[in-house]
Amino acid sequence: MSEGKFTHLDETGSISMVDVSRKASTEREAVAAATVRMSKETLAKLLDRAIPKGDVLTTAKVAGVLAAKQTPSLIPLTHPIALSSVDITFDIDPAGTIEVRSIVRCEAKTGVEIEAMTACAIAALTIYDMCKSVEKGIVIEAIQLMRKSGGKSGLWER
Amino acid sequence: MSEGKFTHLDETGSISMVDVSRKASTEREAVAAATVRMSKETLAKLLDRAIPKGDVLTTAKVAGVLAAKQTPSLIPLTHPIALSSVDITFDIDPAGTIEVRSIVRCEAKTGVEIEAMTACAIAALTIYDMCKSVEKGIVIEAIQLMRKSGGKSGLWER
Amino acid sequence: MSEGKFTHLDETGSISMVDVSRKASTEREAVAAATVRMSKETLAKLLDRAIPKGDVLTTAKVAGVLAAKQTPSLIPLTHPIALSSVDITFDIDPAGTIEVRSIVRCEAKTGVEIEAMTACAIAALTIYDMCKSVEKGIVIEAIQLMRKSGGKSGLWER
Amino acid sequence: MSEGKFTHLDETGSISMVDVSRKASTEREAVAAATVRMSKETLAKLLDRAIPKGDVLTTAKVAGVLAAKQTPSLIPLTHPIALSSVDITFDIDPAGTIEVRSIVRCEAKTGVEIEAMTACAIAALTIYDMCKSVEKGIVIEAIQLMRKSGGKSGLWER
Amino acid sequence: MSEGKFTHLDETGSISMVDVSRKASTEREAVAAATVRMSKETLAKLLDRAIPKGDVLTTAKVAGVLAAKQTPSLIPLTHPIALSSVDITFDIDPAGTIEVRSIVRCEAKTGVEIEAMTACAIAALTIYDMCKSVEKGIVIEAIQLMRKSGGKSGLWER
Amino acid sequence: MSEGKFTHLDETGSISMVDVSRKASTEREAVAAATVRMSKETLAKLLDRAIPKGDVLTTAKVAGVLAAKQTPSLIPLTHPIALSSVDITFDIDPAGTIEVRSIVRCEAKTGVEIEAMTACAIAALTIYDMCKSVEKGIVIEAIQLMRKSGGKSGLWER
Repeated sequence: MSEGKFTHLDETGSISMVDVSRKASTEREAVAAATVRMSKETLAKLLDRAIPKGDVLTTAKVAGVLAAKQTPSLIPLTHPIALSSVDITFDIDPAGTIEVRSIVRCEAKTGVEIEAMTACAIAALTIYDMCKSVEKGIVIEAIQLMRKSGGKSGLWER
Repeated sequence: MSEGKFTHLDETGSISMVDVSRKASTEREAVAAATVRMSKETLAKLLDRAIPKGDVLTTAKVAGVLAAKQTPSLIPLTHPIALSSVDITFDIDPAGTIEVRSIVRCEAKTGVEIEAMTACAIAALTIYDMCKSVEKGIVIEAIQLMRKSGGKSGLWER
Repeated sequence: MSEGKFTHLDETGSISMVDVSRKASTEREAVAAATVRMSKETLAKLLDRAIPKGDVLTTAKVAGVLAAKQTPSLIPLTHPIALSSVDITFDIDPAGTIEVRSIVRCEAKTGVEIEAMTACAIAALTIYDMCKSVEKGIVIEAIQLMRKSGGKSGLWER
Repeated sequence: MSEGKFTHLDETGSISMVDVSRKASTEREAVAAATVRMSKETLAKLLDRAIPKGDVLTTAKVAGVLAAKQTPSLIPLTHPIALSSVDITFDIDPAGTIEVRSIVRCEAKTGVEIEAMTACAIAALTIYDMCKSVEKGIVIEAIQLMRKSGGKSGLWER
Repeated sequence: MSEGKFTHLDETGSISMVDVSRKASTEREAVAAATVRMSKETLAKLLDRAIPKGDVLTTAKVAGVLAAKQTPSLIPLTHPIALSSVDITFDIDPAGTIEVRSIVRCEAKTGVEIEAMTACAIAALTIYDMCKSVEKGIVIEAIQLMRKSGGKSGLWER
Repeated sequence: MSEGKFTHLDETGSISMVDVSRKASTEREAVAAATVRMSKETLAKLLDRAIPKGDVLTTAKVAGVLAAKQTPSLIPLTHPIALSSVDITFDIDPAGTIEVRSIVRCEAKTGVEIEAMTACAIAALTIYDMCKSVEKGIVIEAIQLMRKSGGKSGLWER
């Protein structure tokens, strides 16, 4: 579980951006997920009123894609990365959940795990924002990394 | 549970920013929370190496405060709001969780629920980013609104 | 036609942000438009492939709404304004045009003409971006103010 | 005219960022233009009062250059690109137009057409903003790509 | 000299954004300055080559004005403020200095000292950036508040 | 002292972004510094109240690191650069100064001097912001480049 060292912390516990000068630029990919849980009734209303039109999920997707690109200005110790692609998909379970899934790719000296997770978080928050007038108690559950590949540490899967 | 109408959707299911021109400017407050769950070992390492120095949690706090202020450029249908204050606190359970809690205040025509949730999400993602070299599987659980007050709909508590 | 003074220029021709300290905060509204002109064939393909799904226009709308809110960081001499609402609609003429129309409202010391025009410009550019693989020659025509109301100068209509 | 496929749309009409992972990084260039049309009188005033001092056009140029660099956060499906240069020039016709022309270069996996057009749009809007106190009806005409080179599709000229 | 309490620190030394909910909104103004010191020869070249055209100082002014408006996303514990005006002027001493002076006004619950200082800093850095190919050793001296008025603490002058 | 040509100015004195298309991508590093000077009493209070907790300096560091990454949107004629690392350290002299020092690295076609100086400036302004309630007269002295290496011009040291 506990795989290595805190690369963002020096021996005194001070934070720092990892120096990636000497790392090789390789193809990298990260997949992350988040679950938006609401009442069955709210989701039914949403399926009836909004999902067919598509606007709610497209808005969430656009927000997530933009956020992935803005990660370096949101998460302090991340590196600016020229992302090759960002995609976000949604999977609806009428029992009351919308699962957000992001996939981010780059050719870079460092991975894109945090970009993938940020994309999911902002897409999920955007869904919350559009539904909060109906149900303020909607919860964003389990923002998590599902898989990453590329780089020195290679493949990791949940 | 299902409290009202989708104010961000018109009758055809199209999205729109709620027009707040006619709403009164009142004092509003929102409290949100998020939980970062990691293995007991990772948290022990963090408590040993990083928490005493304070940098990890301060970095997460700064990121969350900045994100609350950037909400209008992150979440598409939100309004620009002159926030009166943003605060973020952390509560550590050595069993393996860091609970992030945000409190946001403003005097405005619309509430700050989404600002409070965005602050929690970005603070939690910042903790993930600084710990992912040790445990990629860390999960951000339950980003949720705990309480809001002010505005026409008044008090809401989880 | 030529209605007044260059309020952004002092007597020496130097630029400056207009000082709005002494202006009254009133309800203001601005309506702007832009036309995206493409070949009949490209628009036919778009109507066949993309418009029904809705993603293209929703993406353009989200981009335009976000841009309206980012106007103060895009257009140098503008004031930060707490916008009350931004809406963007599209009108398609199968002969080859998509008309973008924005409406922006605020209660502020200065108007929102430039916010409305920026929203149209970025929404139109987003349509261009999504269609340029089919027709690089698409032209954005006539970004213009249609109407504004509120403030000392009152109503103006094209 | 209608040259190819909508690369931003999948077979169901859903939007996506084009995956450029497998594309070669080549030298690319794009030239775009926009025309700001005002009454002859307004332009005469501007030539008399402001153009000699240079501030108006320099302000528009700075805004356009900054906007080119901010394209990834303005236009949702664009890629972050390390631009090599951005230049903007102006050509004044006393009959009533200022033509804005941008040229953008990069060495990247995707082109800079939309960066060049965004630069023109924001430079033109900045001119509008500084002149609107004199003539609200100023129109931004014909934001369009003039030429692009580099990449798999090679040279394109209007 | 040492005038009061650290309002951004609680009793344990933790940082926080000052809660301005209960403060009155009043007219406020802040004036700041910065000095860019370069060799007499570099300044002579600049006066010969660039100052008459005006571009260098206008570019610095535009950068400073935009930065004042972006202060809430640059300086973590600041409040978003609807600035009424930002102005920046330059005073050249051929002996080798350019003095940058900013004046910022608002009607708000908190002052604009840091906005005025940020405007000066970014304007000065922009001058440095445009001159560094000639003299890398140029120094930005004495970014400082000159005067502030408004708010509970009233007038302060250096 | 006066080392070369104004690469940001053409022969007419117009500004432009330097075209780096033909420059080689090499490893580059820049070190900059800034000094925050306050009264001995204010610094003593800060050392007593805030420095041990660490929040003040960590907040300044995070702000500086984020600002280095945002340089292309702050300083008009800079290039977007994929920074490899940014670090900021502080050195306190109880006589009344905090020296801020930044070190920035990249592998790019142009140097990172201005990124290093921007990081110092924003970190220093953040310290000012957190201390201004105690002493408004705190001065930021001497933001300057200390050393740069890499690129065609090679090593430079103050």
